[in-house]
Amino acid sequence: MQFLSDNAAAVHPKVWAAMQAADGAQPPYDNDGLSARLDAAFSDVFGRPCVAQWVATGTAANALALASIVAPHRGVICHQDAHIQNDECGAPGFYTHGAALMPVPGADGRITPEAIAALTAPIRRDVHRVWPQAISITQASEAGTVYTPAQVAAIGAVAQEQGWRLHMDGARFANAVAHLGCSPAAASVDGGVDVLSFGFVKNGAMNAEALVWFDPALAQDAGYARKRAGHLQSKGRFLAAQILAMLSGDLWLANARGANDAAREIATGAPDRLMHPVEANEVFLRLNAAERAALRQQGFGFYDWGVDGARFVTAWNADHDAVGALAKALARL
Amino acid sequence: MQFLSDNAAAVHPKVWAAMQAADGAQPPYDNDGLSARLDAAFSDVFGRPCVAQWVATGTAANALALASIVAPHRGVICHQDAHIQNDECGAPGFYTHGAALMPVPGADGRITPEAIAALTAPIRRDVHRVWPQAISITQASEAGTVYTPAQVAAIGAVAQEQGWRLHMDGARFANAVAHLGCSPAAASVDGGVDVLSFGFVKNGAMNAEALVWFDPALAQDAGYARKRAGHLQSKGRFLAAQILAMLSGDLWLANARGANDAAREIATGAPDRLMHPVEANEVFLRLNAAERAALRQQGFGFYDWGVDGARFVTAWNADHDAVGALAKALARL
Amino acid sequence: MQFLSDNAAAVHPKVWAAMQAADGAQPPYDNDGLSARLDAAFSDVFGRPCVAQWVATGTAANALALASIVAPHRGVICHQDAHIQNDECGAPGFYTHGAALMPVPGADGRITPEAIAALTAPIRRDVHRVWPQAISITQASEAGTVYTPAQVAAIGAVAQEQGWRLHMDGARFANAVAHLGCSPAAASVDGGVDVLSFGFVKNGAMNAEALVWFDPALAQDAGYARKRAGHLQSKGRFLAAQILAMLSGDLWLANARGANDAAREIATGAPDRLMHPVEANEVFLRLNAAERAALRQQGFGFYDWGVDGARFVTAWNADHDAVGALAKALARL
Amino acid sequence: MQFLSDNAAAVHPKVWAAMQAADGAQPPYDNDGLSARLDAAFSDVFGRPCVAQWVATGTAANALALASIVAPHRGVICHQDAHIQNDECGAPGFYTHGAALMPVPGADGRITPEAIAALTAPIRRDVHRVWPQAISITQASEAGTVYTPAQVAAIGAVAQEQGWRLHMDGARFANAVAHLGCSPAAASVDGGVDVLSFGFVKNGAMNAEALVWFDPALAQDAGYARKRAGHLQSKGRFLAAQILAMLSGDLWLANARGANDAAREIATGAPDRLMHPVEANEVFLRLNAAERAALRQQGFGFYDWGVDGARFVTAWNADHDAVGALAKALARL
Repeated sequence: MQFLSDNAAAVHPKVWAAMQAADGAQPPYDNDGLSARLDAAFSDVFGRPCVAQWVATGTAANALALASIVAPHRGVICHQDAHIQNDECGAPGFYTHGAALMPVPGADGRITPEAIAALTAPIRRDVHRVWPQAISITQASEAGTVYTPAQVAAIGAVAQEQGWRLHMDGARFANAVAHLGCSPAAASVDGGVDVLSFGFVKNGAMNAEALVWFDPALAQDAGYARKRAGHLQSKGRFLAAQILAMLSGDLWLANARGANDAAREIATGAPDRLMHPVEANEVFLRLNAAERAALRQQGFGFYDWGVDGARFVTAWNADHDAVGALAKALARL
Repeated sequence: MQFLSDNAAAVHPKVWAAMQAADGAQPPYDNDGLSARLDAAFSDVFGRPCVAQWVATGTAANALALASIVAPHRGVICHQDAHIQNDECGAPGFYTHGAALMPVPGADGRITPEAIAALTAPIRRDVHRVWPQAISITQASEAGTVYTPAQVAAIGAVAQEQGWRLHMDGARFANAVAHLGCSPAAASVDGGVDVLSFGFVKNGAMNAEALVWFDPALAQDAGYARKRAGHLQSKGRFLAAQILAMLSGDLWLANARGANDAAREIATGAPDRLMHPVEANEVFLRLNAAERAALRQQGFGFYDWGVDGARFVTAWNADHDAVGALAKALARL
Repeated sequence: MQFLSDNAAAVHPKVWAAMQAADGAQPPYDNDGLSARLDAAFSDVFGRPCVAQWVATGTAANALALASIVAPHRGVICHQDAHIQNDECGAPGFYTHGAALMPVPGADGRITPEAIAALTAPIRRDVHRVWPQAISITQASEAGTVYTPAQVAAIGAVAQEQGWRLHMDGARFANAVAHLGCSPAAASVDGGVDVLSFGFVKNGAMNAEALVWFDPALAQDAGYARKRAGHLQSKGRFLAAQILAMLSGDLWLANARGANDAAREIATGAPDRLMHPVEANEVFLRLNAAERAALRQQGFGFYDWGVDGARFVTAWNADHDAVGALAKALARL
Repeated sequence: MQFLSDNAAAVHPKVWAAMQAADGAQPPYDNDGLSARLDAAFSDVFGRPCVAQWVATGTAANALALASIVAPHRGVICHQDAHIQNDECGAPGFYTHGAALMPVPGADGRITPEAIAALTAPIRRDVHRVWPQAISITQASEAGTVYTPAQVAAIGAVAQEQGWRLHMDGARFANAVAHLGCSPAAASVDGGVDVLSFGFVKNGAMNAEALVWFDPALAQDAGYARKRAGHLQSKGRFLAAQILAMLSGDLWLANARGANDAAREIATGAPDRLMHPVEANEVFLRLNAAERAALRQQGFGFYDWGVDGARFVTAWNADHDAVGALAKALARL
């Protein structure tokens, strides 16, 4: 009855099958037939020409994405709880050769045009200051919430007005789209996203994420950047296979719906304890130490969140019995 | 009647004289007789063995100092108004190869152990987070205030306890020491400072600052770092000459006292308008737009500071008549 | 009948089995039970305490290894045909923050103490020059040859004498050990190697290589470096599983022997055409354009090597019939 | 009677005078009236629109220039004896974030289209290799020779054909132009140079070099790059003053002619010993250890050059008696 994270969940059987089917003789790196299909596959998903590339981790995807849109002497605005700010050991600084992260606060894990304006207003536009050159938002956010298409577009409008670029960390993009019920494009590129880290690992893949550029010009040096970072795998066909399996028949959405459903069910057990709306596959609850201990004694695994909180994460393969048991246990507290 | 900054003030006649006296045949780089005297000169000033090196700018001094004490995957705690954070175009990120600046708030330009604790308490000590590895404080601070020896020592104690290093940005170190009336060591190394950017340019030099390491081990690669950054001048004797002239007969302290006195005199004209105590050579005053316009019409030059404020900076060569006139004009407002 | 490379060959069934067995619930990153066994597993292999870490590619392994032993202002001596010099898109420069590669020539892909001395003799040891701080050798070499233990030790002695570190790019380390018939330690650490990129991908794994530090002090920041580079996979258990499967029962040696045997068999077909001794799983032959065309017409795949040469690489799953056919076809030319 | 180098020679009286005249109240950084004149001054010199910026050292000028024309994953072709390769402690690698230097041999310090072709022909244009993106030539070269306009243009044609950029390290550009007797443009931009490090320090200035971009688009981020590197001096007017004084009345050419004349006079004493033609202000002579010792006993200072050679460098203030004495001493050997 583990709700620690979705990031180490089992690999989906269809992903396993696709990987095994990929084990024939193929040219190395991304010269295989599967990797060659990525651009088209994502162009289909988003309804416009995309350049897509596989990488093994979300951190690599984010860092490569940022390096394609920000100069070393500029900055990236992000939420103060963003993964790039708090969970990547400075990877953005490494890949961008020193560009600054510029964190802003924001309710429920979202940043707003107002928060951006408050950060940037005092920044003199001269040679001494580090100015922003990009914004990075997380869809779904670190608080388990989702930016509506209008909210994405509001951020995108700021970026466009300022001449900045917009990155979306979509480690849980599938959960966001599943929640919104809109097209993948509406949740991202239609609102002005330039480059998307499209996550699969938390959603049933083994070790393949996709970097998707909606502006092909930004992807011009992407192949070199990936190779230079040691992320060009010689048997890349196995990463392409994972991604194509996830896209096939919208497995990515089905998996995300399963995880989202489980999270909502958990939330029904403790509607008054919610720290944030439950819009994806994460449930943040106000639970004091005694309550957390009681849950753990019943066999539930989860992370503490701050002093009086806890985070429960559901995965594509959420166990229905465990989910139901947790909802009931929460209701009983 | 300019009070814009001290950073472009005239060069002191004794500095000019020393530079001209240095124009004989000498070996290049820092192999000349003057550069060779720097270690000893600063060892005298601080009463302990120092390693010192000239560089042309405070930004270079700070960035080289930080690069000697922080790994690329770690961070540097600093005040949110620190020069390294706001006025160096990301130089620390460049020189440290991507280490993060971790700004904290603090009254009157000073950071405190409490502010540091508040920042660092939530940082998990794992491989995902960027942790601090150093603290940088500014003496005198960006708010024109000075850390007392006890305040420095309190920060130094945090650094020592955590196994971090302590950098002091002393662009106006002279003004701080002049204010404190203590030994240079008491204002810095006695409180735990490991490396000091000792400023001279704002205090009568032309283009020579000193980097002073109190822990020689940290300076091991300093020569390479300076050269690699293009900061090893072939006629380095002219930088050494400036510094030695400033140290000779404590010219640095005399110059700083002059600037500090002028600032205090200005402050007497508007004691109720002070945004911060006047402890060095900067005066921050609450002045609305109309008041600022009135002053400017009388010929006073200064920078706006926020919406309803202004900054007046005095230099070593402050004009007494102008200072007196400004104090009176302020009193009249 | 493909002899293009070993880098995209099929995954060994035992590796597949181990990966599938690893798909239970496990903590993320390298906190799983399999990753926890790596240090001990390699300590067994080398007969001394090792620190080991998985990464997805040989380029990442090499670049992380070099970054742990060379400062940004120093250099790494390597063979002019080394993978780090010619096949990694500058990854060493990225990871080391600008350290220089210092290529030297050398017969049959090996560098010698003499070549190193010739390179370094003219380098003044002053602040202006980039000096070496490390040597990197490839075992087996890019020419398909193997350093004997004595040859490794001769290079190691130079490193020790100079206070430099020694890295071994062991993308085909298995083939080298299989050829030498000595202990893995004799082929590496006994000769002074400090850190080894131990390759598995070319030898039956999918996407897992090992970084093995023989001096644990060098690995102190290895976890941060890997994470910062985006190479810490959340389902790292699948990489650990591959490596442990390869080490189990010495599968790595059995696979390498198979590949080496196939290469030797090919060589028997053209003993007079050999450009280098065949000591691992690569055969370099003098073949003119007409001869190459003739072979390709018979269905053999391989890379041209220079104007009048060709490279044939065998893998763990070399097809005996194809190997025999190639040997005969060569003999017929 | 020192002929060690020109890099530490005295400062020209007119430069001193200009610096002292610059010591009035001026806005900081490069907002002063002198710095504002640089673009126009160099546009006059080269007869076309230029963007120019002062920096304190030739190493900084070269590194900033290269960073403006080469991506981190590409390389810069240069002569194997180039200053950027041998005398800058890896500054190009630091400023370019890891781009590779690609040295080529060449008689008399010059590189040729043939040498470039020999280097680049074997470089596969794929994602694994580091390809060139720029060429850097030194005018006058490290061998004291000068590229004719036709030779520059031949290199420039290669750059243009390949889509590369061309940098000229003009630490001794004045000596080259003085030798050629052509326009400064003919010796540089007319042949395809994109950015020039225009040296003054070796020719009578104190610590001011100029970076001159002939393609303004390349200079777009130059201000940020200089600031980020700690090279934006707050009293930049003193650097601008030096440069303007050197350009005024073609002092730069007069000084260079003086140094060149002295070098030629020295060469007359040993025409059979010349290792390279004497075209600038450096004389390389075959002199064995005994001969060098004899010269040193007579009071002449110079550097050994290899095992059986010596380098004599003349400066703008070459002492005529010493020059004559040296020529005679050489003739007597």
